[in-house]
Amino acid sequence: MQRTDVTEMIITERILRGIKWADVAERVGLSKEWVTAGCLGQMTFTAKHAAIIGDIFGLPEEAVLVLQQPPYRGSLPTAVPTDPLIYRFYELVSVYGSTFKALIHEEFGDGIMSAIDFRMDMQREPDPAGDRVSITMSGKFLPYKTY
Amino acid sequence: MQRTDVTEMIITERILRGIKWADVAERVGLSKEWVTAGCLGQMTFTAKHAAIIGDIFGLPEEAVLVLQQPPYRGSLPTAVPTDPLIYRFYELVSVYGSTFKALIHEEFGDGIMSAIDFRMDMQREPDPAGDRVSITMSGKFLPYKTY
Amino acid sequence: MQRTDVTEMIITERILRGIKWADVAERVGLSKEWVTAGCLGQMTFTAKHAAIIGDIFGLPEEAVLVLQQPPYRGSLPTAVPTDPLIYRFYELVSVYGSTFKALIHEEFGDGIMSAIDFRMDMQREPDPAGDRVSITMSGKFLPYKTY
Amino acid sequence: MQRTDVTEMIITERILRGIKWADVAERVGLSKEWVTAGCLGQMTFTAKHAAIIGDIFGLPEEAVLVLQQPPYRGSLPTAVPTDPLIYRFYELVSVYGSTFKALIHEEFGDGIMSAIDFRMDMQREPDPAGDRVSITMSGKFLPYKTY
Amino acid sequence: MQRTDVTEMIITERILRGIKWADVAERVGLSKEWVTAGCLGQMTFTAKHAAIIGDIFGLPEEAVLVLQQPPYRGSLPTAVPTDPLIYRFYELVSVYGSTFKALIHEEFGDGIMSAIDFRMDMQREPDPAGDRVSITMSGKFLPYKTY
Amino acid sequence: MQRTDVTEMIITERILRGIKWADVAERVGLSKEWVTAGCLGQMTFTAKHAAIIGDIFGLPEEAVLVLQQPPYRGSLPTAVPTDPLIYRFYELVSVYGSTFKALIHEEFGDGIMSAIDFRMDMQREPDPAGDRVSITMSGKFLPYKTY
Amino acid sequence: MQRTDVTEMIITERILRGIKWADVAERVGLSKEWVTAGCLGQMTFTAKHAAIIGDIFGLPEEAVLVLQQPPYRGSLPTAVPTDPLIYRFYELVSVYGSTFKALIHEEFGDGIMSAIDFRMDMQREPDPAGDRVSITMSGKFLPYKTY
Amino acid sequence: MQRTDVTEMIITERILRGIKWADVAERVGLSKEWVTAGCLGQMTFTAKHAAIIGDIFGLPEEAVLVLQQPPYRGSLPTAVPTDPLIYRFYELVSVYGSTFKALIHEEFGDGIMSAIDFRMDMQREPDPAGDRVSITMSGKFLPYKTY
Amino acid sequence: MQRTDVTEMIITERILRGIKWADVAERVGLSKEWVTAGCLGQMTFTAKHAAIIGDIFGLPEEAVLVLQQPPYRGSLPTAVPTDPLIYRFYELVSVYGSTFKALIHEEFGDGIMSAIDFRMDMQREPDPAGDRVSITMSGKFLPYKTY
Amino acid sequence: MQRTDVTEMIITERILRGIKWADVAERVGLSKEWVTAGCLGQMTFTAKHAAIIGDIFGLPEEAVLVLQQPPYRGSLPTAVPTDPLIYRFYELVSVYGSTFKALIHEEFGDGIMSAIDFRMDMQREPDPAGDRVSITMSGKFLPYKTY
Repeated sequence: MQRTDVTEMIITERILRGIKWADVAERVGLSKEWVTAGCLGQMTFTAKHAAIIGDIFGLPEEAVLVLQQPPYRGSLPTAVPTDPLIYRFYELVSVYGSTFKALIHEEFGDGIMSAIDFRMDMQREPDPAGDRVSITMSGKFLPYKTY
Repeated sequence: MQRTDVTEMIITERILRGIKWADVAERVGLSKEWVTAGCLGQMTFTAKHAAIIGDIFGLPEEAVLVLQQPPYRGSLPTAVPTDPLIYRFYELVSVYGSTFKALIHEEFGDGIMSAIDFRMDMQREPDPAGDRVSITMSGKFLPYKTY
Repeated sequence: MQRTDVTEMIITERILRGIKWADVAERVGLSKEWVTAGCLGQMTFTAKHAAIIGDIFGLPEEAVLVLQQPPYRGSLPTAVPTDPLIYRFYELVSVYGSTFKALIHEEFGDGIMSAIDFRMDMQREPDPAGDRVSITMSGKFLPYKTY
Repeated sequence: MQRTDVTEMIITERILRGIKWADVAERVGLSKEWVTAGCLGQMTFTAKHAAIIGDIFGLPEEAVLVLQQPPYRGSLPTAVPTDPLIYRFYELVSVYGSTFKALIHEEFGDGIMSAIDFRMDMQREPDPAGDRVSITMSGKFLPYKTY
Repeated sequence: MQRTDVTEMIITERILRGIKWADVAERVGLSKEWVTAGCLGQMTFTAKHAAIIGDIFGLPEEAVLVLQQPPYRGSLPTAVPTDPLIYRFYELVSVYGSTFKALIHEEFGDGIMSAIDFRMDMQREPDPAGDRVSITMSGKFLPYKTY
Repeated sequence: MQRTDVTEMIITERILRGIKWADVAERVGLSKEWVTAGCLGQMTFTAKHAAIIGDIFGLPEEAVLVLQQPPYRGSLPTAVPTDPLIYRFYELVSVYGSTFKALIHEEFGDGIMSAIDFRMDMQREPDPAGDRVSITMSGKFLPYKTY
Repeated sequence: MQRTDVTEMIITERILRGIKWADVAERVGLSKEWVTAGCLGQMTFTAKHAAIIGDIFGLPEEAVLVLQQPPYRGSLPTAVPTDPLIYRFYELVSVYGSTFKALIHEEFGDGIMSAIDFRMDMQREPDPAGDRVSITMSGKFLPYKTY
Repeated sequence: MQRTDVTEMIITERILRGIKWADVAERVGLSKEWVTAGCLGQMTFTAKHAAIIGDIFGLPEEAVLVLQQPPYRGSLPTAVPTDPLIYRFYELVSVYGSTFKALIHEEFGDGIMSAIDFRMDMQREPDPAGDRVSITMSGKFLPYKTY
Repeated sequence: MQRTDVTEMIITERILRGIKWADVAERVGLSKEWVTAGCLGQMTFTAKHAAIIGDIFGLPEEAVLVLQQPPYRGSLPTAVPTDPLIYRFYELVSVYGSTFKALIHEEFGDGIMSAIDFRMDMQREPDPAGDRVSITMSGKFLPYKTY
Repeated sequence: MQRTDVTEMIITERILRGIKWADVAERVGLSKEWVTAGCLGQMTFTAKHAAIIGDIFGLPEEAVLVLQQPPYRGSLPTAVPTDPLIYRFYELVSVYGSTFKALIHEEFGDGIMSAIDFRMDMQREPDPAGDRVSITMSGKFLPYKTY
């Protein structure tokens, strides 16, 4: 049994049982972003959290153990994603990539924004011209140092 | 003269003249994110704004005209970016892509976050454990409709 | 059970039962373009429409639930399609891509034609020199805005 | 001198002289779609039309000759286009490709829509919710025959 | 059951039953080139011909129905084929591609040779220095037209 | 000076001087297929033939020497060609590749059709329903042997 | 049953039965290079030799028939091999490829070394500084001819 | 000035001066295989040998220095070579790769044939049925060791 | 049964039995780096070591035999790894690759660091600012020689 | 002037002036690994260090400014490097990638080794069986955290 098998079980059971990601996150007691990423095979659960996940989705014992192993990450089947929703994020990296680089360097000097020491929050932003998706990302700045 | 030539002129002059992106944005009167993206060849300037950019960087007349044409967008030389700073954003799409999809669909139904009707703000977030890069994105939700 | 499994069931049953896409669309009460795309795994059905689809093709209950989930879109096995019929459309993008861009920008300014707020109609166009395929596409123009 | 050189001359001169594609088409006496595609290096002009193009853009004699040679077609720098406007068309092929195939086969039997014996018309479609881009394509159906 | 499954059945049964492609073609009453391409999943059979194929290879009823559906074409597992026999044809396209283009344009003007309105004949050409493979292809010339 | 430079000179001079490939072949005294392939950088000329080519196109002495060197072959800029005329040949390899393999093996046993000991002839085939391109290829069969 | 299935059976049985390739070759009566390539799915066996192979590895009747069919060749899962031993050969082609070309052309004129009319012998070459792998290849030179 | 510039100078001068690779090797006093690979940018020359090469091809002083630097190796423009002569070697790796692996492991155990501690010799092998290219390679066996 | 099947068994059993790689290495009596690589399908075990591995993970007899065969190496599913931990090593090769090359050549002359005659040690390096991963690699230098 | 231009100047001047990387590092007062990476376009110099580099290699003023800008990193022309020395490092990532992952996770839990907060030291390791390249890497462990 591999992590991708567990992810598929979770996706199937979620549909059959009519579970919401927000409710899963609430029962786990962490943000919906991190918990959903974990359920979709991208994060490692503690034993306690894995047990909760196992309970919610009715997973077998082995699957609960697998959830506690660091997964081989990467949730997309192709280097350039074909799904329109996900592609839009890829497009933002393509169009704004050099801008991210220029502005972070101007503000912080040479280094990167960590994708590990990182958190994210996604909210609905009501707007009379049509509601908006609002995403706030926060990653620690890591400077390149000389040695 | 192509837009990439103008971008290269701007990058060179910025270094030689010691110009800051934030100052360019202030003179143009728009956000630093949009103006930097424009200077790096990803947005179309109005005649008035192009003239200001031309003035700041000492661009020839033809370059000022080129800035007013919609560019062929995409700021990265390879499909998977090699620069570590930009790669981290690509990694976020790879790791969190299916999570973005799951949560947006749960909140809004089927559709996408627009990358066109979109704005972004990047800030330094002071933190005793090391300052953080904070990015807020806001894109209009566009639903798939039946017909 | 994944959406691709449901798509395969539909394709198989359609052949065995001798069903026409146009008739499926009629029973659903929407255009043949949208309904066929949905049956081929590219659109999300409402509960009511999914039940009709399930009835037509004799799908199990789980499949009917899966039809109501936003799918991971993209109907082609390779980035450049090998099937001659589909390749011709890819070729049109390749040959006319820069023309689409030039003319839309000339008429509307900088922005895109939405592929989400979009509809399509395909008809036979009788012609003495051989009938023609006529496709009409309509997508909302989305302007890039400054911020 | 290669066709891509001529294309670049035309693009540059168009900006410098403030020429509109629609006006070029009118002087040539053909549709704006075909003429723009030709100016962007995808179609072959007759001697008479090439002379008009040369006159409008002030091209050298050699360029006018090059316009009369069938070009090596393909207007995109990468197999999957990075420009958002053009990508949306690629996305339509990706999402609707199998639908195009299913519906054309249902209506016409096995065969393809020609991308050679083909014409296209692009119009602005006024809409109170935001104007739309309307594209009508017409391509001859070519049946596969036995032999 | 997909067309690739039917193709695999035919390939297996052909070996087990010791059937020759030429004999299949004779029973179908069409050329060996077209019939073999059909058996290998590239052409659509009529009901009558599909029944004959089903009889020759002992196919189940569902397979006979599948043979009557236009297949997703493309018989090679990679964009550049690895099998030496098939690679030689790819090499001919690579080496002679620009020659095909130059000579067809010189003779016919701008356009293409149809790969749909197309027929092919393959024969052994006896030669004292070693027999040769002789292939004759005939495809309708389709001109690009202005509009 | 590289062979690609010489090819480009020939292509340019051919347009400027209004030369036909068939006439070049006649002066060289070989088939139009082989001579055109040579002019397009795919074959090696003898000193005598290179001199004739140099004379026809007004090439400098160094270019005439370069024509006598075996070139690095391959006339296409991408693995999958984007030009519609050349793509149709690639499509034939894709669709008919496994058929070529099956029929050659049935007739000759295991081996390949040589792309080196090979000749080709292209003719216009008049047809009331539209003239056709007729191509005859002949390549020596080379058997795999045991050892 | 496909050839790759037969190859996998042979690989498995070889391990379980502790068979050496050299012994298989001896029983077949051909070189170890050709026989091993055949067992690994790259060559076609005669009925007699296939029967011997079937006997050695305990293959079912159908597998013995499959061994007599020309296989779809190519033994590597990726275009650039990842296995270090095989990669070293790819590296030799990459580093020495232009040298092979230059020296063969200098000695023989324009043409190729056949990979079909080809034989190979691999031996241990004792050396006090560490034994060496010695490979001798012999392929017929095939000249490009004019026509 | 980069090594590729020096390689191009050597290639051009060799044609203009009518130099043979074998003669270059003789003057250098090493094998024709190693010396040609060096001239084509794949090996590092000593100061003495670089001076000889510089003398033969009339290279400027800087080029002679560049010849003494280890080059960035790899002589092919694409991962899968398009030139037929070089492709045949790639094909041998593709077809015989798993055989090389099986036989070297059977004879030597786990390890590789070095492509660094390596030498090669290419000869004409006269044959009444057509002369053959004979290549002998010798690479040190390097065992994987435990630690 | 293929090596990848054995690797998957080991990975699964390790989770179910709660085994640590360091303990496996201790029982085998070799470094944790080599033993883990072997368990993950990248090294060949001796009969004695394979038996120990089989005992620890409860593998069937056939799996123990498979562990003694040189594997087809390469542990990553894509050329550019998507897992963030492994990607960081790829990034080091990308960023420091030319530096590795420059410094090894300066110190040793032209040649390579062997990846076969190689050993590695990974340790935790305590650090008040956060513990560090320390990796020491040692590979034999192999010089290119002339011949 | 781009960073790649400056890198090329440095590489050229280093050869012409006979400069050693170790001496450059000594004058800058930092490790040879970091300084060489910087000279090869992968690190950002302070104004003081850039002036020293400019002095050593005789760079123009603009180049000295460019050295102080964070570069677009990535030192390799292809995703899979063709140079044998650099490829060996890629091979280590390919063969040992899953081992790095397993052992770091076992020792530290889920997270990565930073490639930013990172240092490296390369030394000659004398060995009677042939000197070895010894590389010590040290990167901060960054844990994935929940949120």
